[in-house]
Amino acid sequence: MIELEEGILSKVITTRPSLSHKGDYGRILLIGGSENYGGAIIMATEGAINAGAGLITVATHSVNLSALHSRDPEAMFIDWRDKNLAKSIQKMDVIVCGPGLGTSDFAKIVLKTLAANISSDQVVVLDANTLDLISQDLSLLPQAKLIFTPHQMEWQRLSQIKIPFQSDTANLVALKNLPNSTDKILVLKSNHTHIYDQSGKIYVNSTGNPGMATGGTGDTLAGIIGGFVAQFGYSMDTVAAAVYLHSLAADEIYRTNYIVRPTAISQKLPQLMKKYSNIK
Amino acid sequence: MIELEEGILSKVITTRPSLSHKGDYGRILLIGGSENYGGAIIMATEGAINAGAGLITVATHSVNLSALHSRDPEAMFIDWRDKNLAKSIQKMDVIVCGPGLGTSDFAKIVLKTLAANISSDQVVVLDANTLDLISQDLSLLPQAKLIFTPHQMEWQRLSQIKIPFQSDTANLVALKNLPNSTDKILVLKSNHTHIYDQSGKIYVNSTGNPGMATGGTGDTLAGIIGGFVAQFGYSMDTVAAAVYLHSLAADEIYRTNYIVRPTAISQKLPQLMKKYSNIK
Amino acid sequence: MIELEEGILSKVITTRPSLSHKGDYGRILLIGGSENYGGAIIMATEGAINAGAGLITVATHSVNLSALHSRDPEAMFIDWRDKNLAKSIQKMDVIVCGPGLGTSDFAKIVLKTLAANISSDQVVVLDANTLDLISQDLSLLPQAKLIFTPHQMEWQRLSQIKIPFQSDTANLVALKNLPNSTDKILVLKSNHTHIYDQSGKIYVNSTGNPGMATGGTGDTLAGIIGGFVAQFGYSMDTVAAAVYLHSLAADEIYRTNYIVRPTAISQKLPQLMKKYSNIK
Amino acid sequence: MIELEEGILSKVITTRPSLSHKGDYGRILLIGGSENYGGAIIMATEGAINAGAGLITVATHSVNLSALHSRDPEAMFIDWRDKNLAKSIQKMDVIVCGPGLGTSDFAKIVLKTLAANISSDQVVVLDANTLDLISQDLSLLPQAKLIFTPHQMEWQRLSQIKIPFQSDTANLVALKNLPNSTDKILVLKSNHTHIYDQSGKIYVNSTGNPGMATGGTGDTLAGIIGGFVAQFGYSMDTVAAAVYLHSLAADEIYRTNYIVRPTAISQKLPQLMKKYSNIK
Repeated sequence: MIELEEGILSKVITTRPSLSHKGDYGRILLIGGSENYGGAIIMATEGAINAGAGLITVATHSVNLSALHSRDPEAMFIDWRDKNLAKSIQKMDVIVCGPGLGTSDFAKIVLKTLAANISSDQVVVLDANTLDLISQDLSLLPQAKLIFTPHQMEWQRLSQIKIPFQSDTANLVALKNLPNSTDKILVLKSNHTHIYDQSGKIYVNSTGNPGMATGGTGDTLAGIIGGFVAQFGYSMDTVAAAVYLHSLAADEIYRTNYIVRPTAISQKLPQLMKKYSNIK
Repeated sequence: MIELEEGILSKVITTRPSLSHKGDYGRILLIGGSENYGGAIIMATEGAINAGAGLITVATHSVNLSALHSRDPEAMFIDWRDKNLAKSIQKMDVIVCGPGLGTSDFAKIVLKTLAANISSDQVVVLDANTLDLISQDLSLLPQAKLIFTPHQMEWQRLSQIKIPFQSDTANLVALKNLPNSTDKILVLKSNHTHIYDQSGKIYVNSTGNPGMATGGTGDTLAGIIGGFVAQFGYSMDTVAAAVYLHSLAADEIYRTNYIVRPTAISQKLPQLMKKYSNIK
Repeated sequence: MIELEEGILSKVITTRPSLSHKGDYGRILLIGGSENYGGAIIMATEGAINAGAGLITVATHSVNLSALHSRDPEAMFIDWRDKNLAKSIQKMDVIVCGPGLGTSDFAKIVLKTLAANISSDQVVVLDANTLDLISQDLSLLPQAKLIFTPHQMEWQRLSQIKIPFQSDTANLVALKNLPNSTDKILVLKSNHTHIYDQSGKIYVNSTGNPGMATGGTGDTLAGIIGGFVAQFGYSMDTVAAAVYLHSLAADEIYRTNYIVRPTAISQKLPQLMKKYSNIK
Repeated sequence: MIELEEGILSKVITTRPSLSHKGDYGRILLIGGSENYGGAIIMATEGAINAGAGLITVATHSVNLSALHSRDPEAMFIDWRDKNLAKSIQKMDVIVCGPGLGTSDFAKIVLKTLAANISSDQVVVLDANTLDLISQDLSLLPQAKLIFTPHQMEWQRLSQIKIPFQSDTANLVALKNLPNSTDKILVLKSNHTHIYDQSGKIYVNSTGNPGMATGGTGDTLAGIIGGFVAQFGYSMDTVAAAVYLHSLAADEIYRTNYIVRPTAISQKLPQLMKKYSNIK
């Protein structure tokens, strides 16, 4: 078990080559945001934008279009009922599915569409309600490079391991046993988030603070992970750097604020990433 | 009668334990915002978010969804005509009802839904039009731990005490006589807001300024009170600290601004709360 | 002819008495914002809010609701097709009519509703398209205390005086001849805006800059005038102070910016007003 | 081939004469923003506003109205399905067509409307999907003073020159051969953007950075070019100054940020333009 330190940021956040274009930094699709939870997908989107993803599309309920573009004109939009969603999924490098998705029958259809259109060289970040829906029906698990981002109760449902028994050993076994044949990384969110891969590597995150205990913190993290993988590739280190940066930004805010609004975390990212890209 | 001082803030605003999660800081539902007064519920929501409530849901007219999420993606949304409103009410720790509610027939239905689904261990902040509607029909009074936030004219309607006769003694009697069997706190808003509980304790707020004399100041206060109770529990001190903080933030703004926009008050909260959480 | 100087601000912008409430700072209704020009009424509203009006309502096309509340939750809303518009007009201290109103048949109906529901002790600021429509049909002129805010071409249409002949003498005569029996103030906008009343008093504004030559500057001014009259009363000095402050704020912005976004002017107002309220 | 330097800014960005009004700084229409790409036309609009265009109208899908006005009340709106679009086109000095336009059948109708209503003394900036649609049907090319802003793949489609063969000589020939009889300027976007006119003049831009490799950078540039031409007239120097300023603003942001959000570029413009307008 390795405790995450600042060094993970300078390792992962490379200086961009001057000859590059937006395609080099990944195409990312964020899926989520029902009629009731539109803010969640917006917060995830702000994580992805500010983390530096190249091209960002958001598939969400049409009621969320105005608020999304009011805040983030950088994101493209697709109505999640649009039949072109399937085609859109196929073109992406990374898909973040879950923030504000809800657990309606339609949410299941979205997951089926994802599972049916994904290929094994794509990355999927599975967050929030997605994890609950997959717990109920494992056939919804996409055959892709996966990143799971459950909190402990969501992990209990998915892994069948009750929270007090979520030891590293048990978590690693459960991760390996999930019925997909591709790579898997688990980000188990708690006050000391643990990150696991199938090789048995474990990172633990020691940053973070109780000002983050507010709705939207997890949605923002899912977006940041997606943005990092889109740019820096799918790996334990990439995911670990995203987790560490998310908490580091929150710690900076918490120094002078009693609560940490998730949207403030995202705003901090470009400056922090610049700082660590310069330290080699 | 005790004059409120800074000390109330450091007493109430505790340092958050590092092992905590959003559920620990309360589930709050804000109900209000008709087609004409959507801004009011948004301002109340910003009070609650910035005061640190853990999980925030807003029940409002569907026309207000876009503006709400444009400003505050941290809030979840429920159409106040949605039949799930009843279930939603049952799950909450605190409900703030009134900002921009209006006095339509539908507003009465909302109040009936609230009264029918509340239980005595929940807290309800009764603000603005809610007070007028209850004045007309006392059966709408929820059986819960109550916080009333009338200005003097609203209190006149509810208590039947004309403004010139709103003495502390009269107010205390009227508060006790309101026909609910649970705890009651009265925040009687004026240039020197008084706070009463049934035990006869009285706080008076000496902060505040005439730059606050603009629409939305009261809505913001209702949200802050809700956010404080969600985190720090239902008590005279909690409510008093919210009232004091609201004015203190406004006084800071007023030092360099002729008017105090209510939304600016909310933005000041996280920094002020940090300051006072550090003074013990 | 008196050239406006800083002194007009400290004269008009009084220190607010500590015992005061929002009703003391006026009820203002802003009417405008068709499907095509919604931004104009939003900019006028931001002028009025930041100038310190007590209670602000906006009557506009329903498509503008979301953007209005996204920016300015402090404003209340009424659909300008709502039959309650007439009642709303009757309750106001000040009405600003025109920003983004357009010249459709419906715009004429709005003006008729205004003329039919106004009384002689209310103030009406007539801006933008309102002036064109009144030029075509003088029966639309409200019988109220009036403030006209035309630019030179709009004044030509209303006064029948061609721009090269718009001398002070001619303007004063034309102002007096307008067929309403109540008080009238004319703000004739140009690079050196002139302000006239029926007594023959003339102010000229020497501040302002070419960075203000962008759409929305006039809408913002109309809102500021409305906000000033709502607080400080209907008088030449009040109007002159609003005109002067608008340009002064723009000059501060222009010192470091090539263009002056009208919304930036409004944001400057609370600090400038504070400064001048302290100079006595 | 001339490498662009700072001097182009002080040359083009003139001090505004104090006797001027918004009409002097151009009427600009931006056309784009389908249901899926509304953010693109908003970003282009913010480029045009902040670059100082006098009067700005946006023709876009009606779903984009709320987000547009939430961010930019300075812009006027026209539903791009409105039959008045044709008349609106005729009144403009500059039209920017393309950001977020899409390639639907309706997008082609928009282009036909543009081609049918334009005259040879107007300027049209052809951006993004517009270039693809014209590649497929050269009759859609407007007979006006043109500015093309393709990236290399879009230029390949339009010019039939494959990317590796896009030499200055080849590009100049292809530009001249495009079947319109009016002036043409080509802005060929790459890491070192080249600008060509029919006289054979070539500018190359050496500023810019890889933080700009994100969706929306090009949309913003199209808006800035439009805003510059509206104010400073159609010329190679005007276009070159817009290209240079866009990158210069981005370079300033990149110094402290890992990524450059396009909306941040626009916000930088007024201050940079002020600086260079003062250097003569």
